[in-house]
Amino acid sequence: MKKIILGSASPRRRELLSQIGVSFEVRTSGREEIYHSAIPEEIVRELALMKAENVAGDLTDEQNEAPKDTIVIGADTIVVLDGKILGKPVDEKDAADMIGALQGRSHEVYTGVAILDYDAQGEKNVSVHAVGTKVYVNPMDEAEISAYIDTGEPMDKAGAYGIQGRFAAYIDRIEGDYYNVVGLPVSYVYQALKRIGAF
Amino acid sequence: MKKIILGSASPRRRELLSQIGVSFEVRTSGREEIYHSAIPEEIVRELALMKAENVAGDLTDEQNEAPKDTIVIGADTIVVLDGKILGKPVDEKDAADMIGALQGRSHEVYTGVAILDYDAQGEKNVSVHAVGTKVYVNPMDEAEISAYIDTGEPMDKAGAYGIQGRFAAYIDRIEGDYYNVVGLPVSYVYQALKRIGAF
Repeated sequence: MKKIILGSASPRRRELLSQIGVSFEVRTSGREEIYHSAIPEEIVRELALMKAENVAGDLTDEQNEAPKDTIVIGADTIVVLDGKILGKPVDEKDAADMIGALQGRSHEVYTGVAILDYDAQGEKNVSVHAVGTKVYVNPMDEAEISAYIDTGEPMDKAGAYGIQGRFAAYIDRIEGDYYNVVGLPVSYVYQALKRIGAF
Repeated sequence: MKKIILGSASPRRRELLSQIGVSFEVRTSGREEIYHSAIPEEIVRELALMKAENVAGDLTDEQNEAPKDTIVIGADTIVVLDGKILGKPVDEKDAADMIGALQGRSHEVYTGVAILDYDAQGEKNVSVHAVGTKVYVNPMDEAEISAYIDTGEPMDKAGAYGIQGRFAAYIDRIEGDYYNVVGLPVSYVYQALKRIGAF
């Protein structure tokens, strides 16, 4: 059995990976994360890979050799509206603007997942995956937007909402993987881990 | 503010209604539930309405008059595969057969919701809604099916699975409302309660 490391501080990703019965550790890196692409699917692929590589880099530095029998998972999620990327809101005003822009229409949520699979010799196999889910949000009035901001849910979330919380009241429908919107496409991760013999 | 009563014993429906911030009581009725239709959408409409009417009937009997300033919500969920309805499994063998039939393809989950809205004079306004969500399940082998049965999740669930639990590992994608699959289309319920002035 290889050791599995989730390279993400997100409590939602931790919950999802636990939900499907995977045993893992959490590690994050303080190393810089940058991307070069302008295409949403490419951006989350780049960032997911960089998060995983950063954690693996820290491990390599600590041990003075590449990790062995270890799997490192990195993930990144962005919300895209008319080609524009919505990150985490900087303040409540920003959050209200984002929700105002998202309500009454559809947008896309992209999550990238990178899996670094180190064998017993420290040889690495990399797979990177990204997919979008279309989310339809019902119209919301200003009182509803401001009540939602007051829940405190928006501030640590890309696009200023969490599909799994109070915002569920405003989600009309989705097309794609629900867990991709929460932040980790668990069925993809499960299949990938199974394929590489992680369990 | 009207009193809101959820006429369902399902812990999942209770969680979902709480999740969107609604305050409510839970009441269920021992009265019989029967349906006449053969069409999935009609069946869940009939059963949701009957569940709500049964709870309202109990209240009326207790108080010797119709409920006043009260909203009663009933809901019912079925899983449909090739036009055949999958209810709750009777035993583990039945559950394994259901999962075996659902894996590697898509099926539909229908949830009906009935809302009885009693005004201050005990006059009743009824709305009934039903919608289907398409669910795509990844291929599963026998070991996976049997491991899933062993989690104990299937036994109290229509179609023998819960999308919100361990089974998430096998859900490729959905088209429609995720919460409809869990058992209560919360955005519909929220909109309906708002329309009738419940909050």
